[in-house]
Amino acid sequence: MRSSDSTSMHVFDAAIALDAGGGDSFLGNTHSAYGNMVGPFGGAIAATLLNAIMRHPQRLGEPLSHTVHFAAPIADGGFSVQTRVLRTNRSTQHWSVELVQDGAVAAFATSVTAVRRASWSALDAVFPEVPPASSIAPAPPIPRAAWTARYEMRFIDGAPGAPGTQSDSSQSRMWIRDTPQRSLDYLSLAALCDAFYPRIFVRRPQWVPIGTVSLTTYFHADATQLAAQGSAPLLGVARALRFGNGFFDQAAEMWSERGELLATSQQVVYFKE
Amino acid sequence: MRSSDSTSMHVFDAAIALDAGGGDSFLGNTHSAYGNMVGPFGGAIAATLLNAIMRHPQRLGEPLSHTVHFAAPIADGGFSVQTRVLRTNRSTQHWSVELVQDGAVAAFATSVTAVRRASWSALDAVFPEVPPASSIAPAPPIPRAAWTARYEMRFIDGAPGAPGTQSDSSQSRMWIRDTPQRSLDYLSLAALCDAFYPRIFVRRPQWVPIGTVSLTTYFHADATQLAAQGSAPLLGVARALRFGNGFFDQAAEMWSERGELLATSQQVVYFKE
Repeated sequence: MRSSDSTSMHVFDAAIALDAGGGDSFLGNTHSAYGNMVGPFGGAIAATLLNAIMRHPQRLGEPLSHTVHFAAPIADGGFSVQTRVLRTNRSTQHWSVELVQDGAVAAFATSVTAVRRASWSALDAVFPEVPPASSIAPAPPIPRAAWTARYEMRFIDGAPGAPGTQSDSSQSRMWIRDTPQRSLDYLSLAALCDAFYPRIFVRRPQWVPIGTVSLTTYFHADATQLAAQGSAPLLGVARALRFGNGFFDQAAEMWSERGELLATSQQVVYFKE
Repeated sequence: MRSSDSTSMHVFDAAIALDAGGGDSFLGNTHSAYGNMVGPFGGAIAATLLNAIMRHPQRLGEPLSHTVHFAAPIADGGFSVQTRVLRTNRSTQHWSVELVQDGAVAAFATSVTAVRRASWSALDAVFPEVPPASSIAPAPPIPRAAWTARYEMRFIDGAPGAPGTQSDSSQSRMWIRDTPQRSLDYLSLAALCDAFYPRIFVRRPQWVPIGTVSLTTYFHADATQLAAQGSAPLLGVARALRFGNGFFDQAAEMWSERGELLATSQQVVYFKE
């Protein structure tokens, strides 16, 4: 029996759970609660790869950056995760993590963990003026994408459009948190950064196959800010800058209700014309 | 004698040149023309690592994304570059590249190359209204950072401030191109994305040690757009979103004069208080 099968565990923790696989290896499984239309929700995979680093006994500090490549479709089922410390400095550490399924690399990550220390600080990004989460009804999940039922999403604007509508902007703003509620940590924040509907469905509401190719998240929040967040909703803002030649980008900001920028994230996404 | 020592070669090509090292390996050298205050200019290293992919006989398509980790200081001198194809799909290919110096990984990259094909396209980012490059005088290079003499930078706003001044914004906009002029390709574009002065020196003009930790660039331009660019100036826009706990981020957009978004780039940077 896997140690991660405890029934008292939050379903997100069950979905990203890893068993020791010997040395720098871990063993994981996709989880049906975080399934996507095909295979698992990428945010859950991003968090699983980060979890391998979080569990590693040699880890220095907390996550600072996390780049995930979705190299091939991940099948529902088991996989192994292989971690490697590429370099350890005084206050930063560089990691490589590979997810192997059926003998081939299906996803991989490169990450930085860092020891944060107090410093001069400044915020250049502007916290959007938006109505409070409590004033907006949660959007219904999408039945074909199980993972959408695992997040409470309250759209301020840029909800995925009805077929036939066309928007001049790919921007979405929403209040979002885990369902059921769960205290924020780096793992859930890594997944939340990928919990935006693909921008092409906002800009041009017409279903086409899409897939994230590469995703990079920078964690701005320190442990104190994360602890203060608890299970309160985060304000997520996502937009694309350019669509073309079968790919588009997506940039996201994750804010606390108090106007702290907790994380920023970018991804490049394939789409089939 | 290295094949890259030809005197007719542009100094940028000499700086990022690689010799075959057998199999998936290459051999390179830092170049004094692209030196920084300490060690080489990060943009030249980013381009060198991409060059290993460009030279690889198994490469599929052109660069789509390029993430570089600056894991440790790189000393002036020689290094080896080891490439690995992690996955080849029908239209995308995932790469790992490691720069090894004195037996340890000093920098590494994960990248995606892709076969681009015509598709629906849209631009969501807004091309800034700025005066033409010809109306602005180039800024003088910084003597202590040799690489700054290798770029013609014409600042519209956000030039690094004089000590003691303080700006409410970390944004810079500049027209930039290689010196001497060189036709744009993915390699020089990769370096240009890192050719912004660190945002902290715009926001708080006081010298402190800084170093890029990780850098991710998405290439939006296809080969036709790059060829049309030639050696014309690019409009570069860079800003930070958040400074704190000894790190800040930096986001950049690179535009053609015709308003095409050629690349977007993000980095997370260490700074010493």
